[in-house]
Amino acid sequence: MHMESPGTPESRAEAAANAPRIAIEDVEPQLEGGRFAAKALCRRLTRIRARIFMDGHEQLEAEVAWRYVGETEWSRLPMQWQGNDHWEAEFLPVREGRTEFIVLAWVDSYASYRHDLEKKYAAGQAVDLELREGTELLRDIVHAASGDCAAGLTAILQQLDEAPQREECLALLMAPHTLEMVQKAEHRAHLTRSIAYALDIERQLAGFASWYELFPRSESPEPGRHGSFSDVRRRLPEIAAMGFDVLYFPPIHPIGRTHRKGPNNSLLAGPDDPGSPYAIGSEEGGHDAVHPQLGSLADFRALVAAAHDHGMEVALDFAIQCSPDHPWLREHPGWFSWRADGSIRHAENPPKKYEDIVNVDFYAAEAIPDLWLALLNVVQGWVEQGVTLFRVDNPHTKPLPFWEWLIAEVRRDHPEVIFLAEAFTRPAMMARLGKAGFSQSYTYFTWRNTKPELQSYFEELNAPPLRDCYRPNFFVNTPDINPYFLQRSGRAGFLIRAVLAATGSGLWGMYSGFELCEAEAVPGKEEYLDSEKYQLRQRDYRAPGNIVGEITRLNRIRRENPALQSHLGFHAYNAWNDNILYFGKRTEDLGNFILVAVCLDPHNAQEADFELPLWEFGLPDDAAMDGEDLMTGERWTWQGKRQWMRIEPWHLPFGIWRLHPAR
Amino acid sequence: MHMESPGTPESRAEAAANAPRIAIEDVEPQLEGGRFAAKALCRRLTRIRARIFMDGHEQLEAEVAWRYVGETEWSRLPMQWQGNDHWEAEFLPVREGRTEFIVLAWVDSYASYRHDLEKKYAAGQAVDLELREGTELLRDIVHAASGDCAAGLTAILQQLDEAPQREECLALLMAPHTLEMVQKAEHRAHLTRSIAYALDIERQLAGFASWYELFPRSESPEPGRHGSFSDVRRRLPEIAAMGFDVLYFPPIHPIGRTHRKGPNNSLLAGPDDPGSPYAIGSEEGGHDAVHPQLGSLADFRALVAAAHDHGMEVALDFAIQCSPDHPWLREHPGWFSWRADGSIRHAENPPKKYEDIVNVDFYAAEAIPDLWLALLNVVQGWVEQGVTLFRVDNPHTKPLPFWEWLIAEVRRDHPEVIFLAEAFTRPAMMARLGKAGFSQSYTYFTWRNTKPELQSYFEELNAPPLRDCYRPNFFVNTPDINPYFLQRSGRAGFLIRAVLAATGSGLWGMYSGFELCEAEAVPGKEEYLDSEKYQLRQRDYRAPGNIVGEITRLNRIRRENPALQSHLGFHAYNAWNDNILYFGKRTEDLGNFILVAVCLDPHNAQEADFELPLWEFGLPDDAAMDGEDLMTGERWTWQGKRQWMRIEPWHLPFGIWRLHPAR
Repeated sequence: MHMESPGTPESRAEAAANAPRIAIEDVEPQLEGGRFAAKALCRRLTRIRARIFMDGHEQLEAEVAWRYVGETEWSRLPMQWQGNDHWEAEFLPVREGRTEFIVLAWVDSYASYRHDLEKKYAAGQAVDLELREGTELLRDIVHAASGDCAAGLTAILQQLDEAPQREECLALLMAPHTLEMVQKAEHRAHLTRSIAYALDIERQLAGFASWYELFPRSESPEPGRHGSFSDVRRRLPEIAAMGFDVLYFPPIHPIGRTHRKGPNNSLLAGPDDPGSPYAIGSEEGGHDAVHPQLGSLADFRALVAAAHDHGMEVALDFAIQCSPDHPWLREHPGWFSWRADGSIRHAENPPKKYEDIVNVDFYAAEAIPDLWLALLNVVQGWVEQGVTLFRVDNPHTKPLPFWEWLIAEVRRDHPEVIFLAEAFTRPAMMARLGKAGFSQSYTYFTWRNTKPELQSYFEELNAPPLRDCYRPNFFVNTPDINPYFLQRSGRAGFLIRAVLAATGSGLWGMYSGFELCEAEAVPGKEEYLDSEKYQLRQRDYRAPGNIVGEITRLNRIRRENPALQSHLGFHAYNAWNDNILYFGKRTEDLGNFILVAVCLDPHNAQEADFELPLWEFGLPDDAAMDGEDLMTGERWTWQGKRQWMRIEPWHLPFGIWRLHPAR
Repeated sequence: MHMESPGTPESRAEAAANAPRIAIEDVEPQLEGGRFAAKALCRRLTRIRARIFMDGHEQLEAEVAWRYVGETEWSRLPMQWQGNDHWEAEFLPVREGRTEFIVLAWVDSYASYRHDLEKKYAAGQAVDLELREGTELLRDIVHAASGDCAAGLTAILQQLDEAPQREECLALLMAPHTLEMVQKAEHRAHLTRSIAYALDIERQLAGFASWYELFPRSESPEPGRHGSFSDVRRRLPEIAAMGFDVLYFPPIHPIGRTHRKGPNNSLLAGPDDPGSPYAIGSEEGGHDAVHPQLGSLADFRALVAAAHDHGMEVALDFAIQCSPDHPWLREHPGWFSWRADGSIRHAENPPKKYEDIVNVDFYAAEAIPDLWLALLNVVQGWVEQGVTLFRVDNPHTKPLPFWEWLIAEVRRDHPEVIFLAEAFTRPAMMARLGKAGFSQSYTYFTWRNTKPELQSYFEELNAPPLRDCYRPNFFVNTPDINPYFLQRSGRAGFLIRAVLAATGSGLWGMYSGFELCEAEAVPGKEEYLDSEKYQLRQRDYRAPGNIVGEITRLNRIRRENPALQSHLGFHAYNAWNDNILYFGKRTEDLGNFILVAVCLDPHNAQEADFELPLWEFGLPDDAAMDGEDLMTGERWTWQGKRQWMRIEPWHLPFGIWRLHPAR
């Protein structure tokens, strides 16, 4: 802050005369003035933008200087003027890690001089004086220059001194070679620098992935037997064939006995009830151990390796709460809150009590830094076992500085590790978790069903600040969310939600059972009946009515079309029917342009006039364009902007069309 | 930036555990993360807002601490929770000056405790343990407390220790007195502070004023005689009677002879041509002198005093350019640019040349700091003569750091001084001049004529960032702008532009001749024919067809209605006719609510159905409301939301109605 300005008017005037003369504003991407790193992906174009301007009419130039944190050398990107004081540079990162960038701008005196000279000459004015002044300007520039370009400029000056004719001087001063030498000299008047902004560059899987969630204990082929990692291995080909690339398990750790929950969240568990895997920890171990019935740590490693062979990576749940039987309660009582009577404080949301779960106390005296380090060790330990993604349970109930620290620590050695925030809370916290470092986030998608809801949500995700801090992972269902829409929609509804998720974002996910259109609910609630959280649920994945074929196709379309590998590049278009959501997704260069039309009504056929976005290609309203149905392979030519569609949800409630400008 | 984090995971964990736990985001008002001061006005409510949140469910509290720069003590304002993590405080400044404010937030452990206790007690749960824990919490609080409240809390603790019954303890812990003592103790867990943000508080005239511009030299009652300050004094009653409170003169300094311009900007002036007052400086003096034909400095002071007696303040033009005859060229050649042949560099915009004007060079070696200080002296000198407002000519062609410095220096001793930026340039620079300290600004208003243009411009001015840095002064015309619309509109058009300016912003202005509907133009140009910039123009201010009566009424309505004393509080409403702009202006408490309907077509009657904004008062669509026509004094009762209007521009092209909820 420039609150108190000591000194005299003289000294303050001198300070002001030395202050940056050029205004650099609205630098993008940035979060809260550079407090947090904005998100970027490897080999995906990031545009760095700024508004740059100064008093008067001199010619400005600008560039971006950037480097990976820890490097000493800066790389440079020229910025291009876009009109109305907007400047832009294209940045294509090639590896993961934290980078910082600075925007620099300066007055290009020589360009300003040439600009004026050209105009005067063209107007037929006498320019003798201007030619002398150009020579003087070059002399100033050579003074400050060094090496090759100093020598080159000196040679040009010599020629100018010897040139007898006005035309010769003019030619020399305007010559491309002279300009090149001047540019090399980097004569940067009124050089102004922005502050440094950070970018977190992650690998592409952080922005483009299809997640499949299952409970390993349900994967046994024998009814009633507890499943194991080996059972999961047997299913890998099937899951990979559907096109998923992340396989995600709820907690795989030993499950507590004390206050264990029975089926349907009942308070009393029978002796054979497996309990909720979120009640982590028993005498068999805590967050670093494996539930014995699932297999050994070696079995887990083998599963991870087998998944890799099928092109999949394994995501684990990182849920910090403990069962009352967790070894930490005994070994580190100082990490927990104890009550006035010496009993442990259970999780609660008064008047509700959760007696099967105990929360750690991040700010207890003994917890700093030991608990924090222990939690870091848990994550690092699983990274060593081959886990490269973590779905973090309820991160919004743990301190934000903890996440900022933990994620930075893990990424220090393993920038490839991806964190998914399972937060369903108010918007500010959702965004802040992204700023703190989470690669991607659960979303409000499950509760956006109507056309205006979906359209405005997709648009919000495409605009700053969310664009720069929040990558949405559209889960169509989770063990905790059996959406009301699916409870009533039948098979068509599952296809509707699948296509919205799979085309709306580069990240989508489903929890097993979705492909079988399972939706049996606890009456009146958004919960699954006989939830797998409390019991085994074996399934016949080939049951009739499944949508495995459609999901497989959707995932293939996603892989083949870069426009569908991000939530960015979304534009809603006109289709005159409130039950049809119609939008485009495009790569920046328009090389891949996909249109998606979704009938949001699972029960009735819907028709609409709609607009083919010919204008996006600079085409007139009566132009033709080739379309290709990516679900059926059919091809045709559209003639003109105004078109008509009819969608029958009992066949397929959507269309995905690739656009090709007609030859 | 937190780019490089030295140390070990342990030390970094400890640092993170000591980092602010609470997120404070989106603090308003602020400009570029606190780099510039946001604008506020004396005795006008400024709302300070922030998004404040934390992990988990504990109760937060927040306040704003603020002080005038230079003070050591902070004042405090409690912030109120507004839902969805939004908090707000109301700040009513009472004097001018630069202030700084900080947002603070903390966990209110005792409120969290009481909140949980109440819920458990209401649910009939046993709370004995909770009562013991409450007593312990109080003990912690008293430990950190001091003075009166420590004593009070100790007394409460004693009562608790002696209380035999559970109900008694409960009553003590929940008692308002206990809460009050705890609040006084300021037990602020996880206290988090925002950075400091600055506010520039100016007097009301910076935001609410009606400007009248005239050339003193035209005010002689005898045709052809050069007018004087005394002539202006004679007109003061008339101008004050119209309701203007700022009287603004183009430059009043000696005018150069060299390359003096003749009538209609001709290159050759006759011996009696007065020249452009913007060619400042002759052997009779420079920026600190008065053009002899206008009178003496004493005459000027007398005029300023007389204006004060009529409730008006005087604004002078601050135009930094010099005529080639300006004394500075001789006395301070180092403040200017000289060419290779030793001649002075004239102003130019190649290939155009302005040989009657020379610009100073702010960055010349000898100009720092002498030229800067000389310019400051000019402004300070006129302040000493009683000038309290400056209209600054073309500030966007002078360095931004110069303005930031100059305005701060002047306001250091004279926070009452108001600066109006006469910039017509790209939007970023327009806003930046406000950030640099200009109190108010010329605008794009003169070129906004259609309903969508006006509506979106008014809305843009009401939203951040412009809301916080840019006060629009809507001039309906200037000596440089004879708007095309007025050239064709006739008298009705002048009324249309007057009402748009006078109701659209707290600041509006007109250049004399407007009240006479003068619009004779240089053909095809937005310039006045026989412009007063180059010649005398005496007028008959009582000429038929004048709109003096309407202007007088408009200014009176503005004074009587606080809703019209700012550009803020604008909301467009539905009137189904593209030629009728229909909007509301309101004070924050809705105590003053004005509706304005303007027929943008000066030639034809227009009709429209329109909506009475009953909903703004929480009224149903069939409610009744009293309306009052502020131009005619007529009163009536509107019944229901849907209404109809007809405007006949030849009578009066607008309506201004005050709303009163019907009794």
